[in-house]
Amino acid sequence: MKSPAHRDVQIDAMRDAGNVHRADAIAVEEPLEIRLIKAGSSAEGTGENGGTGRPVSITMRTPGNDCELALGFLYGEGLLREPRDIVDVRSCGPTGNVVRVTVRADLPLDLDRLNRNFYTTSSCGVCGKASIEAVTASAGIRRVSSDLVVRESVLRVLPDTLKAAQAGFAETGGMHAVGLFTSEGELLACREDVGRHNAMDKLVGADLMSGALPWSQRVVLLSGRASFELLQKAMMAGAPLVAAIGAPSTLALELAESAGITLVAFLRSGGCNVYCHAARVRPTRGES
Amino acid sequence: MKSPAHRDVQIDAMRDAGNVHRADAIAVEEPLEIRLIKAGSSAEGTGENGGTGRPVSITMRTPGNDCELALGFLYGEGLLREPRDIVDVRSCGPTGNVVRVTVRADLPLDLDRLNRNFYTTSSCGVCGKASIEAVTASAGIRRVSSDLVVRESVLRVLPDTLKAAQAGFAETGGMHAVGLFTSEGELLACREDVGRHNAMDKLVGADLMSGALPWSQRVVLLSGRASFELLQKAMMAGAPLVAAIGAPSTLALELAESAGITLVAFLRSGGCNVYCHAARVRPTRGES
Repeated sequence: MKSPAHRDVQIDAMRDAGNVHRADAIAVEEPLEIRLIKAGSSAEGTGENGGTGRPVSITMRTPGNDCELALGFLYGEGLLREPRDIVDVRSCGPTGNVVRVTVRADLPLDLDRLNRNFYTTSSCGVCGKASIEAVTASAGIRRVSSDLVVRESVLRVLPDTLKAAQAGFAETGGMHAVGLFTSEGELLACREDVGRHNAMDKLVGADLMSGALPWSQRVVLLSGRASFELLQKAMMAGAPLVAAIGAPSTLALELAESAGITLVAFLRSGGCNVYCHAARVRPTRGES
Repeated sequence: MKSPAHRDVQIDAMRDAGNVHRADAIAVEEPLEIRLIKAGSSAEGTGENGGTGRPVSITMRTPGNDCELALGFLYGEGLLREPRDIVDVRSCGPTGNVVRVTVRADLPLDLDRLNRNFYTTSSCGVCGKASIEAVTASAGIRRVSSDLVVRESVLRVLPDTLKAAQAGFAETGGMHAVGLFTSEGELLACREDVGRHNAMDKLVGADLMSGALPWSQRVVLLSGRASFELLQKAMMAGAPLVAAIGAPSTLALELAESAGITLVAFLRSGGCNVYCHAARVRPTRGES
């Protein structure tokens, strides 16, 4: 029994013309627990709460595409690498707020790694090493390899294309989106969520399952700001160009520079700012 | 040697008029590690990396008001309750990206609680219990007690007042803000950060130190959306009215309802939506 992505609630809309008590749609936010288990493990089967396996993360997300979210999250952490790593993925528990991912029995997998690396690498980096090394996942920096070139005139149209696909935002005014485009500006997929990182994970997870990773010929568009966390997920997916409608942060830029990702931000119909690896963007005035 | 809140980088600004290579300010995002130690503990003193004590959290934040951030975070988790709980708080480590909080020796403090409760309560709730109980901190739901009433005409002015105080946003276009106001609309404090939860923690931490908690006669304004996490922090601080310029989520609304917090969202100069406990907002048309 899954929750919808948005829900009607009763509000008092206070305006100059007067106050109206009426229904309004708001974005659903619920916890999702991601559990991981190896195929053939003695702990497999259905335990209490419908959730066997080891819990590795809980995220506050908008319900929908939960299996993709779980797979994308695990891929971004470097725990999954290819479709054959996945034996089974399913929603479970009475509320549908648990996803259990079963991986192949011989997958090298250190389940303690998530937490351990978090503190090990972060602590060192926080205190001295370059911060960028400190907070990237244990997988470290992966250099993106791609000969992608995109016309700036194509980029300028992407925000409108994404907005037209944001059904959840249109309903609630309260959901982030991530869009995946071809170099010609064709929208391949759009995912929405109250959490930006979840929307990205949902896209990555879907393409992991279908064997469409890495994204070496794809453009990723973020409806909001470009944070470090989103650049890290894009790097793991092999994206050569990340564009944001909002602003970037310093750490997002440092990661993009190191990983060879073209970072575009403040993307509008009237132009954009390119922060690094600008050679992948062909300026409008240079077009024939 | 602390980092500034924003930093100039070189960008390619692509516009119809042509492309310009120029400097642009972007928001700084760096990790901050929060460490906790009891006064008189044998582990006290300066260890390697300048960071003794137990690491309890790492957050990606904009440098500035780091001690307040750490204290506000610990207060929001229910680990600190009053000023006398704090013996010392200081930035340490070569990069200033560590804050160590020393608490009084006899403070009841289970340092394993943060992680343990996370999985215990979340797992149960994810699988069956009301999600709201599941994901609130171990402190549970605290009912806010306040006779605050605010005129809607006062609320409508708050976004402009906050915006005028958002120096970081003006520079970078990429920082969230949280403002603390009196019931008459006077801005008492504003904090900015790449992470909304950090901006809130900074406000809470400052008022914890100065003995100005709970916020029973205060209005909290969020520059963006009202998520569950922000409502939880507001609840811990005893705020009776939380207003957001952006949209709310279902879980934020559920928490506000349960905790007795008035939730206002889509706050504009032309009006606002009130989602629960509307009695604290006096409509403009009812004013004398």
